[in-house]
Amino acid sequence: MMDKPREECGVLGLWSPEPLPVAELLQLGLFALQHRGQEAAGICVSNGKDLVIEKDLGLVSQVFDETRMQRLRIQGANLGIGHTRYSTTGSNLRFNAQPLSVRSSKGILAIAHNGNFVNALQIRQQLLEHGAVFQTTNDTEVMINLIARYARLSLVEATARAMRELKGGFSVVLMDRQTVLALRDGNGVRPLVIGRLENGGWVFASETPALALMGARFVRDVRPGELVWVESGELCSMQVLEPRPTPCAFEWIYFARADATLDGIATHPARIRMGEVLAQEAPAEADLVVPVPDSGIGAAIGYSRASGIPLDYGLHKNPYTGRTFIQPTQEMRDLKVRLKLAATPVVAGRRVVLVDDSIVRGTTSGRIVQLLREAGAAEVHVRISSPPIKFPCYYGIDTAARKELVASTHSVEEIRQLIGADSLAFLSESGVRQAIGGPVCLACFNGQYPAGQPEEEVRKEALEQA
Amino acid sequence: MMDKPREECGVLGLWSPEPLPVAELLQLGLFALQHRGQEAAGICVSNGKDLVIEKDLGLVSQVFDETRMQRLRIQGANLGIGHTRYSTTGSNLRFNAQPLSVRSSKGILAIAHNGNFVNALQIRQQLLEHGAVFQTTNDTEVMINLIARYARLSLVEATARAMRELKGGFSVVLMDRQTVLALRDGNGVRPLVIGRLENGGWVFASETPALALMGARFVRDVRPGELVWVESGELCSMQVLEPRPTPCAFEWIYFARADATLDGIATHPARIRMGEVLAQEAPAEADLVVPVPDSGIGAAIGYSRASGIPLDYGLHKNPYTGRTFIQPTQEMRDLKVRLKLAATPVVAGRRVVLVDDSIVRGTTSGRIVQLLREAGAAEVHVRISSPPIKFPCYYGIDTAARKELVASTHSVEEIRQLIGADSLAFLSESGVRQAIGGPVCLACFNGQYPAGQPEEEVRKEALEQA
Amino acid sequence: MMDKPREECGVLGLWSPEPLPVAELLQLGLFALQHRGQEAAGICVSNGKDLVIEKDLGLVSQVFDETRMQRLRIQGANLGIGHTRYSTTGSNLRFNAQPLSVRSSKGILAIAHNGNFVNALQIRQQLLEHGAVFQTTNDTEVMINLIARYARLSLVEATARAMRELKGGFSVVLMDRQTVLALRDGNGVRPLVIGRLENGGWVFASETPALALMGARFVRDVRPGELVWVESGELCSMQVLEPRPTPCAFEWIYFARADATLDGIATHPARIRMGEVLAQEAPAEADLVVPVPDSGIGAAIGYSRASGIPLDYGLHKNPYTGRTFIQPTQEMRDLKVRLKLAATPVVAGRRVVLVDDSIVRGTTSGRIVQLLREAGAAEVHVRISSPPIKFPCYYGIDTAARKELVASTHSVEEIRQLIGADSLAFLSESGVRQAIGGPVCLACFNGQYPAGQPEEEVRKEALEQA
Amino acid sequence: MMDKPREECGVLGLWSPEPLPVAELLQLGLFALQHRGQEAAGICVSNGKDLVIEKDLGLVSQVFDETRMQRLRIQGANLGIGHTRYSTTGSNLRFNAQPLSVRSSKGILAIAHNGNFVNALQIRQQLLEHGAVFQTTNDTEVMINLIARYARLSLVEATARAMRELKGGFSVVLMDRQTVLALRDGNGVRPLVIGRLENGGWVFASETPALALMGARFVRDVRPGELVWVESGELCSMQVLEPRPTPCAFEWIYFARADATLDGIATHPARIRMGEVLAQEAPAEADLVVPVPDSGIGAAIGYSRASGIPLDYGLHKNPYTGRTFIQPTQEMRDLKVRLKLAATPVVAGRRVVLVDDSIVRGTTSGRIVQLLREAGAAEVHVRISSPPIKFPCYYGIDTAARKELVASTHSVEEIRQLIGADSLAFLSESGVRQAIGGPVCLACFNGQYPAGQPEEEVRKEALEQA
Repeated sequence: MMDKPREECGVLGLWSPEPLPVAELLQLGLFALQHRGQEAAGICVSNGKDLVIEKDLGLVSQVFDETRMQRLRIQGANLGIGHTRYSTTGSNLRFNAQPLSVRSSKGILAIAHNGNFVNALQIRQQLLEHGAVFQTTNDTEVMINLIARYARLSLVEATARAMRELKGGFSVVLMDRQTVLALRDGNGVRPLVIGRLENGGWVFASETPALALMGARFVRDVRPGELVWVESGELCSMQVLEPRPTPCAFEWIYFARADATLDGIATHPARIRMGEVLAQEAPAEADLVVPVPDSGIGAAIGYSRASGIPLDYGLHKNPYTGRTFIQPTQEMRDLKVRLKLAATPVVAGRRVVLVDDSIVRGTTSGRIVQLLREAGAAEVHVRISSPPIKFPCYYGIDTAARKELVASTHSVEEIRQLIGADSLAFLSESGVRQAIGGPVCLACFNGQYPAGQPEEEVRKEALEQA
Repeated sequence: MMDKPREECGVLGLWSPEPLPVAELLQLGLFALQHRGQEAAGICVSNGKDLVIEKDLGLVSQVFDETRMQRLRIQGANLGIGHTRYSTTGSNLRFNAQPLSVRSSKGILAIAHNGNFVNALQIRQQLLEHGAVFQTTNDTEVMINLIARYARLSLVEATARAMRELKGGFSVVLMDRQTVLALRDGNGVRPLVIGRLENGGWVFASETPALALMGARFVRDVRPGELVWVESGELCSMQVLEPRPTPCAFEWIYFARADATLDGIATHPARIRMGEVLAQEAPAEADLVVPVPDSGIGAAIGYSRASGIPLDYGLHKNPYTGRTFIQPTQEMRDLKVRLKLAATPVVAGRRVVLVDDSIVRGTTSGRIVQLLREAGAAEVHVRISSPPIKFPCYYGIDTAARKELVASTHSVEEIRQLIGADSLAFLSESGVRQAIGGPVCLACFNGQYPAGQPEEEVRKEALEQA
Repeated sequence: MMDKPREECGVLGLWSPEPLPVAELLQLGLFALQHRGQEAAGICVSNGKDLVIEKDLGLVSQVFDETRMQRLRIQGANLGIGHTRYSTTGSNLRFNAQPLSVRSSKGILAIAHNGNFVNALQIRQQLLEHGAVFQTTNDTEVMINLIARYARLSLVEATARAMRELKGGFSVVLMDRQTVLALRDGNGVRPLVIGRLENGGWVFASETPALALMGARFVRDVRPGELVWVESGELCSMQVLEPRPTPCAFEWIYFARADATLDGIATHPARIRMGEVLAQEAPAEADLVVPVPDSGIGAAIGYSRASGIPLDYGLHKNPYTGRTFIQPTQEMRDLKVRLKLAATPVVAGRRVVLVDDSIVRGTTSGRIVQLLREAGAAEVHVRISSPPIKFPCYYGIDTAARKELVASTHSVEEIRQLIGADSLAFLSESGVRQAIGGPVCLACFNGQYPAGQPEEEVRKEALEQA
Repeated sequence: MMDKPREECGVLGLWSPEPLPVAELLQLGLFALQHRGQEAAGICVSNGKDLVIEKDLGLVSQVFDETRMQRLRIQGANLGIGHTRYSTTGSNLRFNAQPLSVRSSKGILAIAHNGNFVNALQIRQQLLEHGAVFQTTNDTEVMINLIARYARLSLVEATARAMRELKGGFSVVLMDRQTVLALRDGNGVRPLVIGRLENGGWVFASETPALALMGARFVRDVRPGELVWVESGELCSMQVLEPRPTPCAFEWIYFARADATLDGIATHPARIRMGEVLAQEAPAEADLVVPVPDSGIGAAIGYSRASGIPLDYGLHKNPYTGRTFIQPTQEMRDLKVRLKLAATPVVAGRRVVLVDDSIVRGTTSGRIVQLLREAGAAEVHVRISSPPIKFPCYYGIDTAARKELVASTHSVEEIRQLIGADSLAFLSESGVRQAIGGPVCLACFNGQYPAGQPEEEVRKEALEQA
């Protein structure tokens, strides 16, 4: 809930054979992708002639006020892209909001991006020496400059060529005034799905629930390494890179919405299976299974079913956000958790299995255990439906710096003591694989990076080990 | 969730023997009472000499920004009151925010109020004829003018006298520059609890979770008809009106937080019992119990336990608010519900028991049934953990006008057809009493008003029946 | 320019026999009265049934944005009042914005007020003892409570009775849902004029330029001690108090707009005459007459004409406001003046007569003299077109506290040294009388208060002298 | 006043040998340049390491609120540039605010620009074909890309090379993390001056009053075609282009502040001389010379002096801005003028010479003549202290499209009839030259463009004439 890895973006694209309220549809889709990025949002629309972008820091509901929607409602609009962003701190935050657009030899291009390039620095340096200028230190600007650089190739060919040069985990949606393109890196680390509107139009989105809210029917996932675009109303495809599918396991563990289906696997049932496997791997003698709302609900249902221990709503979550406004004093170090969660009286005198999906820093888990004890819980057994996070993600997830990852520097027993639990267990890597049922990237658990690491990080690591 | 009766207010009071960060403590308490009113919030603090009020439309986290908190941080503050409000539409909304303050013969008074007076109009008329002027059409202003009118009585005596003249359901917290008073009508319709700070100070609050977040220990409920105040650091009490306890049943059905205990009865366990009784009164042949999040969770747990049908998270709730920003088109009449809820794949092919706490207009329930059917639910059996709402509340709850109450004009079978359920059942009145286990006001279900009705309403009704 | 007495308010009223865009007309009128108060503005309109008020801190152009104008555009509106305010610092600033409205035995009343009551405290005390409550410490609220108190009298009679009880200098515009009233104290200290719309409607305004912008023809001034109101479309009048006209001289010296005519005397020509008399009373050997823009322009023209010394634009005024944003450092103590004014090269090597209308604290004048010297002025002779301000105003002008008035504690020669001028002269009292040509209040110059002083001030003064 | 050509920008640069409150100094300087651009403002500061830019739409006082100033106050700042902008309407307005910055092979560069390049389109096309991307359609971005393109040259050399390729009228200030550069086109169309701080630092500014407010001493103008920069604390210079000085005459006619001195000639005295010459060229039989405030003041003083007709303040200017808020109705088509100006009673019965500096569309002049007539003026003789504007400016001034220029399509007699004056006369071209006393660009009067025209315009013109 508070101590979670953070997804860096959600992307969206739409093309329609006839004018539609494109801005409204993209707004709906972004609302369904809000959980993938809460700090900035943007929409770009075009009618084949004009192209308008509106973006700012804030939630979708804040950014797209009536003034901005008015500006996006251009006559005859029939295509557009959208973006939600979790942005890291920095000075020119507003400039980092996407879609990013440039005027190039191919006309105006706009781009929305989820993920990271591990060789962005190297490519950027080459472009600079060639006379390019950059507005930001953003990966996305590197990609668009790279595409613009191939001034003599068509947009599709230039994009394919850029895909071949860039390494890492990325799903991208791109548009000019006439068409929309969507692509996924060779490992398909980040999700991207294709939907179809009733009027024959096409939609690209990070997750299936966006399709549903936009009134589009799910068609299929974009394949790892595939570039798709719309031409004469038809969906065209080019398999640019050889597919070596290892989608990010965390999409099923935590990120993706409970009603999503990605690469053919539904998230909520997968979470239930994680809880079931966890109950087999790490049983507990207890009276009550209590989920950490809302992240632990799926796994708690599974744990309860497999163990036969009844589920109860032992933690109340205050739906109002208080994170921005109250400065905790020294005496109230755990205020942030108390503003969000309160133990309900049902835990009094009971042995509780507390189920959550992951632990990053561990501080929040410790405070929740304390809340349950203050409310009279007799024992608190913590069960986590994923393995310990020990390594940083280079493919678009902010897991906190490595030294802040509690599991990177502590054993499971040490973490148990830190959080004050009577027992603690994590789901095994094989348990995750079994519950999801397909090939996945587990780099943050085991340090094996299927889509490569940044050169500078590899060098740093080598130095540290030398 | 969306089709719910709305509580009109939460109130808060604090007195400390020594200076404290009063504004911060009240802010915390109001945050814990945010669910009792989301449209306005206010805080009044004093140090015995200065008295400052800050209030505005908005959530607690919006109203109390750093600028306002700065103004509330007066040197040596040791007492204050607070208010959250669900305000009805109107022109001078900002003026209706509370605490309301006046300068009177007794100095400055500030008041925060939850509930309604059924004879406010009559008393107001008397005061006007006496030369009084009013800023609002608000009940609260009537009470404060009534108190000011007794210019020769002490504040405690004048307040007691006002309690005797006013009829209805009301919990009130009141302060001048030196002390805080708290009172509850003779029926104790609205809740009010007393807590104690570690430094010997006193806290009054609508619900117990506010005490917890403010670091106060629960002492007892204010009794129906009781007036309490702090004098020389001691809690003084006057039993102004004969207690005839009939607290509002809806506090346990829906309003009060899941971690609250009111008049000795915890809410979440009571909700579980309502679900259990409901399962006995209205069993269903089904595969899955699905709560409407978050209002149906308690009763769904009870229903699942008593029936043995497994509980699952069949509806995903989008935690981001989209209510203000999207204008539904004709084709998307149910957009409001779809922005909030989506069915998860687990319901496909299953017979579902959908559990919620109440039905007001019925439209939302119908849309949720439809969501489940679209996701492939084989059958949808709706179970409501309270009786049909047929009558308006005159004690501080906005249930919608009588003719908008679907149960006021339709039979249960007609409602079932309207919402498209395979079966529909409500908990009985005796079921509610049994689950709560104490005397309660059930006026909105049976039209029996223990604390009286407004004269003008009685007359209107008589006319309609004539 | 910066060191000026500040007018506390402008008032406006309008009644039309048929619906008009009342809000827009009042907005125009207030814009023409903006110089009488820049810190808050408000408009109240009615259509005989509904009555809406919008007011806030800020300039007319800031307060009346499209949202507020929309709310004021009620169907069939035919009357309204308006107010601009210079508000003193304090906590509940927004509550002090006018029009002030109350619900009374006479229905809703709204009031807009320019001036001060010298016996407000005494009347307020009587009302409190009678059970009244107040929202503010504002004079205006005392008047409206006094009117409401006479519950059995008609609104006209009750208002006349209040006029008789209140002492001081005040022009007031008042409305209920049907009609508008306007009144002026017995001395007519503050101005108030009557205009007529082409459709037969009536307008009341502090100054004539408001009439012009609203499209109304000037009819006459409201007489000192007169109460006027509209009945059956006709202007009715009651001479409530015996007229002893002594309008405020400062209206002609500085406050009123250069295109205004008050009590039959045009302001700009009066200012020219002040300059002419000043040139006779205090001639100077010089090459150039330089006005302090914009306050000294009229008198500078007069001085130039009577003396034959050519006028030039020796000080450039930056039209952009910089007062709120720059924090002067120690080295730039005179930054505030430098942001506003800069000397032009024409003063180099010249003997300059610097003309302004008044000196309050003297600091600004000193800085302007310095600017001229830095630009090379050979000599600077300061001429002020009013006498030294030595006494506070009790009739609605903020002249600064007595001890801050440089002329209250320093001789003319001492002031000359303070501001670093080669010579300094003020217009004499008889010079002011001669230039204006009618009876005037000169209390701030000579301490003779024609409309009385606050009892508490008289007592304080007696104590200080004892 | 309202019907004036609009200057497009003011620029500013500062370098200090030691840390200074750079942001505050630039803010002061921009405030003094506010008249050169009121729609956007920006500041860039650096300490040799960090470089921060803050810019937005709005006045200097609005853009640089405490939040933005805080961000600009970086530790040890010793250099920076600033910009005020009058921006034309368009979609991405905020992106057009300057300083513009990019990350290039030379590190971060920031640029502030006043003027226009007549061959921007051609150069832009070449850059695009080379793979460059642009954020805007802005001239300034073309220049910075051109500089970045010379990746192997030093910043000074690359800038000099860009100066040689770009044609038109432009003054530019440029910085990287270490130094500040300033340059002026070969004709010196737009002004740029050099000042020195007491600590040995250097300041570059569009006009001298900015130096004064920043505490800098005037050193000299940047010469036409010169590039200057600071190296080891010394001012270095390179005469990149042969100087052919023809500075813009309108700087003396209207744009530059009355206290400015540009290219050795003070503006206010030049305006007085224009009025004097005008009185000789076009005398009038009249009683009063009335300036249009504030633009006509200088020339009116000159006209009054040379003609002996007394000057008076016949038009009152409301200092409050009302342009944004009031929607004029059909009946009030001239409301915009009436909100700003009102005739004072002194004009009644008099023959008036109305003096202004220029006429663009003519509508405003007509309304002012009408105001004077309504106030009783017997005759109105309009005298304009510049020739008729017949041609567009391609060097950074927005004079309105050619067909909107009343003098481009009407004779002087036709304009006289349009504005309803009794007589009308303009200053001659030779009169302007005589009054200013140096070589000037008069392209907007005579169509002779000393710094070239855009190719596309030349072609268009040729077509129109064919």
